[in-house]
Amino acid sequence: MLDPAFTLRIPDGDGRPRKICDHCDYVAYENPKIVVGSVVRHGGKILLCRRAIDPRKGFWTIPAGYMELNETPEEGARREAFEEATAVLKIERLLAVYSVPRISQVQLIFRATLETPNILAGVESLEVRMFSPDEIPWDELAFPSVHWALRHDFEAEAGASPAPFGNPADATGDRMPDGRLLPTDEF
Amino acid sequence: MLDPAFTLRIPDGDGRPRKICDHCDYVAYENPKIVVGSVVRHGGKILLCRRAIDPRKGFWTIPAGYMELNETPEEGARREAFEEATAVLKIERLLAVYSVPRISQVQLIFRATLETPNILAGVESLEVRMFSPDEIPWDELAFPSVHWALRHDFEAEAGASPAPFGNPADATGDRMPDGRLLPTDEF
Repeated sequence: MLDPAFTLRIPDGDGRPRKICDHCDYVAYENPKIVVGSVVRHGGKILLCRRAIDPRKGFWTIPAGYMELNETPEEGARREAFEEATAVLKIERLLAVYSVPRISQVQLIFRATLETPNILAGVESLEVRMFSPDEIPWDELAFPSVHWALRHDFEAEAGASPAPFGNPADATGDRMPDGRLLPTDEF
Repeated sequence: MLDPAFTLRIPDGDGRPRKICDHCDYVAYENPKIVVGSVVRHGGKILLCRRAIDPRKGFWTIPAGYMELNETPEEGARREAFEEATAVLKIERLLAVYSVPRISQVQLIFRATLETPNILAGVESLEVRMFSPDEIPWDELAFPSVHWALRHDFEAEAGASPAPFGNPADATGDRMPDGRLLPTDEF
């Protein structure tokens, strides 16, 4: 078995350097990745999951993850909520489209409700819990975009325009709201 | 030089089969791809580009293409319009989020205007042209989502909600509006 080995080269007919295999000339195109997730409400409370895996193990997040092949964004958001919290969602609408260009991520975040009140931690969660708005553990959230999504969901709940939110002004997703820079491997 | 050779196998710690290299065990993860594009207006007319490349060479499309690494969706939409039509865009807002799950594509389509009236065919376009609404070549559009975006832009122009449009009801993007099925390789 060979070791994987790639060199950055510009393929014929392309304009940018791509990862090309030294052994077989396979072009490993890298594309931005789509994260799908939801702010999930039930009985005035919001579902959060405490992460059982790195990055940001032990911190709280909304149910979200990488979109898979051959699903719609809504299907992906429902799948992630089921995997992480055994939660069965009814998707209401698109809440936000965020982007974190440094790590080439686009996030599609929906507003959703629980079809049934049953939640249970999946293998990627240490614990899952419904938080009332004044209980949200703001200092223990996993990622900047979890802050953004919760803030934006409160604005939506208060009657903001149905246009989806984007990144807060000047926010690129590299720092937590307190200004702390996240190490690259924490994404 | 070896020939590229992949087998579908489930990597350790994963739950789904992935393309794994027979020579070096490299896992070629495949993710949904993001298309970014714009319906571009200037002086009451809409910019369309006649495709110089397959799929759908010779048909008309809005400026759009695959999002690249390390850009925001808006930057990607501006880049594509410049590459295809030398058009400099001012992005107004998100018009639509479409998905074509069969080919694992998510499309983020913006409303935009021209910063300057100058347009010129780029290497991927045979010709570029501003069409008044009654001149749109509906029967010569490249993809179902080009139809959708133009129809939705007319609705937005007529005052529809700022919530982004999604796929028309039951439309998965596999067929043109006249019911014709697009061959897989036409995407």
